[in-house]
Amino acid sequence: MSESLAELQAKMKAQGEKVRQMKKDGASRDDLKPEVDILTSLRADVEKMIESEAESNPANKINRAGLEDLCKRRFLFTPSFSIYGGVAGLYDFGPPGCALKANLEALWRRHFINHDNMLEIQCTCLTPEVVLKTSGHVEKFTDLMVKNEKNPDEYYRADKLLEEKCEALLQEPSFEGDREQLQKWIRVADSLSAEEVDKIFQELGIKQAMNLSFPYPFNLMFKTTIGPQGNLVGFLRPETAQGMFVNFRRLLEQNGGKMPFAAAQIGLGFRNEIAPRAGLLRVREFPMAEIEHFVHPDHKDHPDFHKVADLKLPLFPQHNQLTDGKLRTDLTLRQAVDIGMINNETLAYFMGRTFLFLVKAGVDGSMLRFRQHLKSEMAHYACDCWDAEALLSYGWTEINGVYELKICTGARYNITKEMVKVKTVTKRVQEVPFIPSVIEPAFGVGRIIYTILEHTFRSREMEDQELRCYLSLPPVVAPTKVSVLPISSNPTQFKPAMHKITDALKEHGISYKVDDSGQAIGKRYARTDEIGIPFGITIDFQSLNDDTVTLRERDSMSQIRLPIADVADLVYKLCTDRMTWEQAAEKYPKFDAQHA
Amino acid sequence: MSESLAELQAKMKAQGEKVRQMKKDGASRDDLKPEVDILTSLRADVEKMIESEAESNPANKINRAGLEDLCKRRFLFTPSFSIYGGVAGLYDFGPPGCALKANLEALWRRHFINHDNMLEIQCTCLTPEVVLKTSGHVEKFTDLMVKNEKNPDEYYRADKLLEEKCEALLQEPSFEGDREQLQKWIRVADSLSAEEVDKIFQELGIKQAMNLSFPYPFNLMFKTTIGPQGNLVGFLRPETAQGMFVNFRRLLEQNGGKMPFAAAQIGLGFRNEIAPRAGLLRVREFPMAEIEHFVHPDHKDHPDFHKVADLKLPLFPQHNQLTDGKLRTDLTLRQAVDIGMINNETLAYFMGRTFLFLVKAGVDGSMLRFRQHLKSEMAHYACDCWDAEALLSYGWTEINGVYELKICTGARYNITKEMVKVKTVTKRVQEVPFIPSVIEPAFGVGRIIYTILEHTFRSREMEDQELRCYLSLPPVVAPTKVSVLPISSNPTQFKPAMHKITDALKEHGISYKVDDSGQAIGKRYARTDEIGIPFGITIDFQSLNDDTVTLRERDSMSQIRLPIADVADLVYKLCTDRMTWEQAAEKYPKFDAQHA
Repeated sequence: MSESLAELQAKMKAQGEKVRQMKKDGASRDDLKPEVDILTSLRADVEKMIESEAESNPANKINRAGLEDLCKRRFLFTPSFSIYGGVAGLYDFGPPGCALKANLEALWRRHFINHDNMLEIQCTCLTPEVVLKTSGHVEKFTDLMVKNEKNPDEYYRADKLLEEKCEALLQEPSFEGDREQLQKWIRVADSLSAEEVDKIFQELGIKQAMNLSFPYPFNLMFKTTIGPQGNLVGFLRPETAQGMFVNFRRLLEQNGGKMPFAAAQIGLGFRNEIAPRAGLLRVREFPMAEIEHFVHPDHKDHPDFHKVADLKLPLFPQHNQLTDGKLRTDLTLRQAVDIGMINNETLAYFMGRTFLFLVKAGVDGSMLRFRQHLKSEMAHYACDCWDAEALLSYGWTEINGVYELKICTGARYNITKEMVKVKTVTKRVQEVPFIPSVIEPAFGVGRIIYTILEHTFRSREMEDQELRCYLSLPPVVAPTKVSVLPISSNPTQFKPAMHKITDALKEHGISYKVDDSGQAIGKRYARTDEIGIPFGITIDFQSLNDDTVTLRERDSMSQIRLPIADVADLVYKLCTDRMTWEQAAEKYPKFDAQHA
Repeated sequence: MSESLAELQAKMKAQGEKVRQMKKDGASRDDLKPEVDILTSLRADVEKMIESEAESNPANKINRAGLEDLCKRRFLFTPSFSIYGGVAGLYDFGPPGCALKANLEALWRRHFINHDNMLEIQCTCLTPEVVLKTSGHVEKFTDLMVKNEKNPDEYYRADKLLEEKCEALLQEPSFEGDREQLQKWIRVADSLSAEEVDKIFQELGIKQAMNLSFPYPFNLMFKTTIGPQGNLVGFLRPETAQGMFVNFRRLLEQNGGKMPFAAAQIGLGFRNEIAPRAGLLRVREFPMAEIEHFVHPDHKDHPDFHKVADLKLPLFPQHNQLTDGKLRTDLTLRQAVDIGMINNETLAYFMGRTFLFLVKAGVDGSMLRFRQHLKSEMAHYACDCWDAEALLSYGWTEINGVYELKICTGARYNITKEMVKVKTVTKRVQEVPFIPSVIEPAFGVGRIIYTILEHTFRSREMEDQELRCYLSLPPVVAPTKVSVLPISSNPTQFKPAMHKITDALKEHGISYKVDDSGQAIGKRYARTDEIGIPFGITIDFQSLNDDTVTLRERDSMSQIRLPIADVADLVYKLCTDRMTWEQAAEKYPKFDAQHA
């Protein structure tokens, strides 16, 4: 598609030049007319094609306004301190957001830490300067910034400004410059040097129009001082990794001195973003989850690689970003390792496990890609990196990065040779000192939460023609697993059945919400669907006679009828992947109308 | 006891004066001799009594060095950045500490949030200055500091220096000053004004001896700037409460506009302590858990108060602190409310629930007291407060505070009248604007963890005369619930049974640790006891014949024999209060020796 747009645009450009030349050469009106018509028609075609491309982009179908309204109304998350005017880039999680986050972190813990017996630790956010100097962050953890030379209150993150300007130009049908060049700049924006950005701003005329300064680095770490004397400089950690590196020796000891092993940490990171925006996507304080897998540099194969080796991930390697911009979906992970596209088995293993995790959590696998960092954009501490990017209404967005870390320089890693004199246990004949390789999968918890919300946000037309929104959250991450709805609000009548059910749900450790508001049952379903509660138990008048209830599934809206005594156990099985809804629907009769 | 010590000391003092006077008056050696003998004997008695008091204090029996060694060796927690020399007041949790913390927080969530249907939220640590100005923290969240006028590198937290100096004097048998006065100063140290502290330092001669400055306030909040311009001042929150206050309106909405309701938050707090010390007890970054219970100011009774009303907590009210220093253990919570000692039912309800929580988590109830804040030490935002204090090797230490908050001034609470125009639902005739009262139970998670460790740290002599230490952690908080120990390290032989067991444990969500090191079983038990694993499954040669294993309980070291098929379910029941060890020992035969 994008080639034919480029072709059309090239034709349009050529035609424009032809018309201009003819005018310059003093061509007659009659001679000009057919050429101008061709140009007009080409312009219309380009415009139409841009529109249709925009429509075919699934990200543009996301009803972001509807989702934002839902998040606000149901207090999933909200800008912090809004009663004081708020602070850009800070968000609070309300009760359902908080539960969603806790469930996602618990899933992460099971999927990664428990599954691979990792060593979980929790380190401090406050970090003394010396640690971040050694790791290179004090010098290099920066973004390029530009400001209006005539108004210092007007400042921008240089790469984001460049991206925006290029995107705006692409949306302009009359733009006759090099569209492919614009698209390439968008892809490489955050890997450009200050000189390169400055040159492009000049070329596009932006520098002059906006009085932009030469791009300068801005350190993203929050600075403070520790202790009452004010002379010990500290920073809030920009990531959790350092805490695992400085504890390397202790962790190795806990693992009985054996390699490989992995440490993991869930906690807060802080980055003083120049221009926070896009809700939870670019914020200044964020929950994250990181793994440091330490492995012998000569043995980067992984014993469990075969378990993910046949997965075909949507890969976006360096080469394709710099050429045709297309995904590779034809390669298994094993093939990608074999042809050297992915560096080694361990890196590929974590990419596969990451894909499985994200899909399990509710991210749409068809709106996900793994993009390899360009050499020029690589973080100062990485020698290879693949980002898991999700397609959102804001465009492709990094939600995870699987890094292979540079340790040859010793610049980032506080791992000295003394720390890793490891006796290789199989040989027992000599000490073999080596510097371990590190694979680092890092997850932005807030970004994943936002992705899940966009990817599971749906709407459907009800019988009464009302359009209702709901979150099709997988039960494993849903804030509340089941609602309990007595059909009438008469409390004495329904109380015994309700208590029987809620006691059993408590016993099973299932989070539930009782809605005995007495509103129409359809209204109550709508409210529970909206916040993503996957199942609903309705106690009706029939329940009073035969001790049965209905169980409704959110996405299909289908219902089954079953004994009260079975319901908590069934919901437990449905929420823990022990049974599917289809299996439940086979076991119990479908329910259409109440036999009162 | 302390009265008779005081009496003895008074006698000693009088005798000393008598001897001095006699010397002054030129008494003969023979006349002096018997009086000096009396003085010497009195001194010996005082010394003996101080020693015996110290011995009878359970806090002095704690083997702190042994516990510290264990924490270090097993990486429960460790000073952060120690490879860079460390930073005082910062600690990292290693794998078992991390699991203990997660279990404690999960217990807190069940005991408080789920039990009372509270609204859990998570707010940011970064807080703009305006919020903490309004709450009074910018002005008043300070500690008094003194420094050596001749050496600014020598500085102290004034109240702690006073406490230490008084305690040192009390330990000195020859001290003839007013011991009761010293004890009173220790109790009120952190409630004294700068003028009062200065006067006492002068009286004790400390000011002169140490060249102390006049005490001056030091703000405990970490300061930073938010955004690239550097003009928006922010602080790291000193507590999580503000986030709940600024979200009050949204929370009220989520509760259907109904009062009372409670918000809760688990997260980090930051305080730039002047003199961090005592391991996890006084640190600069700490996990905490807080509740804000919003209630109508005219209805501070609590519907569930009857559930805790008959508990007799060890109370230490203001009056007793200022007089005899004795605990009141004779009052039920209901009586304490009735006589006005505790302000209201809601405050007492949370004190009772707090006591139950702490004991469930492993705090020794007999080494716990609830101390009411003195009027002069009350935080600027509180009108009453009871601290749960634990007796530790460091002395009585606050691990929780249940505050009743001041809101009349509007100084701390960002709750304006517009926010709380609540229609009282029962009447439906008018709007009744009011400012809610707030009860705030606040828990220091790190302090509670340390208390649990000290209170459950035990040692016992084994048959081989070796002294072994272990942590008698309640199963609910133990980092790992069960160990799996094949008696021989032959892997092929024991593998099938082991997998059967570990699969079943996984299915039940029970954390386990396999130790197939092949070391003597006693050594392996010692290692698992040490880290507080409450149960151990041993697969022995008999298991290969009859599919049974032994299950051992850590504290009693007794064992039972049961089918492999039953063991995961039994451990699950033992770890979730569904069954006691005594009940299990009745159901299954005791195991003494292996029937090989």
